[in-house]
Amino acid sequence: MPGEFDLIARHFARLTPPRGDVALGVGDDAALLTPAPGHELVATVDTLIEGVHFFADCPPAALGHKALAVNLSDLAAMGAQPAWALLALTLPRADDDWLAEFARGFGDLARAHGVALVGGDTCRGPLAVGVTALGQVPTGQALRRAGARPGDGVYVSGELGAAGLAVRARRGELALSAALVAHAAQRLDWPQPRVALGLALRGIASAAIDVSDGLLADLGHVCAAGGVGARLDLGAMPLPDGALTLTPSDELLGSGDDYELCFTVPARHEGAVSTVAEQLRLTLTRIGQIEAEPGLRLVAAAGEVRAVAARGHDHFR
Amino acid sequence: MPGEFDLIARHFARLTPPRGDVALGVGDDAALLTPAPGHELVATVDTLIEGVHFFADCPPAALGHKALAVNLSDLAAMGAQPAWALLALTLPRADDDWLAEFARGFGDLARAHGVALVGGDTCRGPLAVGVTALGQVPTGQALRRAGARPGDGVYVSGELGAAGLAVRARRGELALSAALVAHAAQRLDWPQPRVALGLALRGIASAAIDVSDGLLADLGHVCAAGGVGARLDLGAMPLPDGALTLTPSDELLGSGDDYELCFTVPARHEGAVSTVAEQLRLTLTRIGQIEAEPGLRLVAAAGEVRAVAARGHDHFR
Repeated sequence: MPGEFDLIARHFARLTPPRGDVALGVGDDAALLTPAPGHELVATVDTLIEGVHFFADCPPAALGHKALAVNLSDLAAMGAQPAWALLALTLPRADDDWLAEFARGFGDLARAHGVALVGGDTCRGPLAVGVTALGQVPTGQALRRAGARPGDGVYVSGELGAAGLAVRARRGELALSAALVAHAAQRLDWPQPRVALGLALRGIASAAIDVSDGLLADLGHVCAAGGVGARLDLGAMPLPDGALTLTPSDELLGSGDDYELCFTVPARHEGAVSTVAEQLRLTLTRIGQIEAEPGLRLVAAAGEVRAVAARGHDHFR
Repeated sequence: MPGEFDLIARHFARLTPPRGDVALGVGDDAALLTPAPGHELVATVDTLIEGVHFFADCPPAALGHKALAVNLSDLAAMGAQPAWALLALTLPRADDDWLAEFARGFGDLARAHGVALVGGDTCRGPLAVGVTALGQVPTGQALRRAGARPGDGVYVSGELGAAGLAVRARRGELALSAALVAHAAQRLDWPQPRVALGLALRGIASAAIDVSDGLLADLGHVCAAGGVGARLDLGAMPLPDGALTLTPSDELLGSGDDYELCFTVPARHEGAVSTVAEQLRLTLTRIGQIEAEPGLRLVAAAGEVRAVAARGHDHFR
């Protein structure tokens, strides 16, 4: 379409870093990229739609950040190094101020991870942001969903549940303290993809996934892919202070938008996890253990064990 | 999101061909692909939105076909061999019959070009189809928009203008004969990406682009990228019979959705063009010549020369 690349190019040209492996970027029929020898290409696409994945009042800079972040989170879960991105932007109107802010959010995160925007298109329509992220991983070293074995430790990075609290608070379903409102909003609007963690877990983790649909749903995928189950310790979960007094645990662990990594580690590698945590200055919490019996079991603080459904609760639906 | 891959996987699993270079397809956080050594990766994304790029009554099989076709057309314009695709599908509701038809149209074209669907996501929202197509080209052999030099012949494949006539007829702006209605609808709904032509033009064409926004706009991009202009022969244009009695030439040559290739060929290679046309059984028409002077000039049948604007007319806007 006339002007499609002009619009993108004007706002994005200098926001993402130059890369030596981009032979031809935005401005031709397609981008020309030079894959690294000895690597596999890692490709993912995710779309954010107004009213489904974000609220209408989402600041454009946060939207630009998040649209790229959720895709880099998928690359992180594969242990891939992000390289390139393409952007499919559908806008109700061409608004220069909005685009400048959106591009700032997208560009800051792209630069932080060395990702070059190499193509895209813009259309007029209901606000939606589709990002294709491409990364690379040395052949055979990718982290996969399948691979967890009985006895493996189950770990999660960072913290769970705050983004889900933010969604429910914005919908008027929960009242949060002022401190928790700010913290939860930051978690919902500005997720940090755990790229460095994904790279560090190569050779350590037996399986990995990013927590986008809620821990229970995503760990459920890992268990299903490996033909195993898991026993989880509620008392060990890295939840916001006081969260369990606000809402049931299944709600907290089933809420989406955390964008942390959940991964499993064989006993012989568990010693390496604390080293990774120290190097990355990132909290990595052992929340349970893989078992042969399929399904998820949650051990409450009082020692009671009960089955929990491996289904995520998507607040936006 | 819960079920996103289930939905796609169920309808698409067996519709696109297995490829040995897909280490991991749909069903993990991202796809794992093995690029061919000595090749560049070619990447493009295009989104089709209801009411913008297609009419609400577009048959789902045609939509599935076209969403992939417009992206393969971009790869064709680079001289790339298509390999993999990702699909971002936004649907107002999950309709099994609709999805089955959509998948059939997408899958038939994917199989025809050996393209594997390796990932994607589905969302609920206003109907939109985003496709990311990935292909490969031996390093340094890609066709680009820049490269046309004064004296080069200007060629176009197939026929121009019929898709634009179909759009105007459906909007009630034109009355077409029954034969032309059927032909024009076929051209609009079932464009055939000129992949084999793109491959054959490696080493022959000095520049190439796909005609998606109308010949004048797209040849305008080629001229701008090369710092040159072009003189076009209206009498030589491959237009539908009788089209010039229905609508002015600038309208025909400015209408979009042709998905043919427009390419330029240095004099020393022009002899090879007819050989390519014979091998592919595809009409390739010399429609003019590149000149040093910027801008597009159209020579009418009577010999009159006039400047024409290098802008496409997008009927959907």
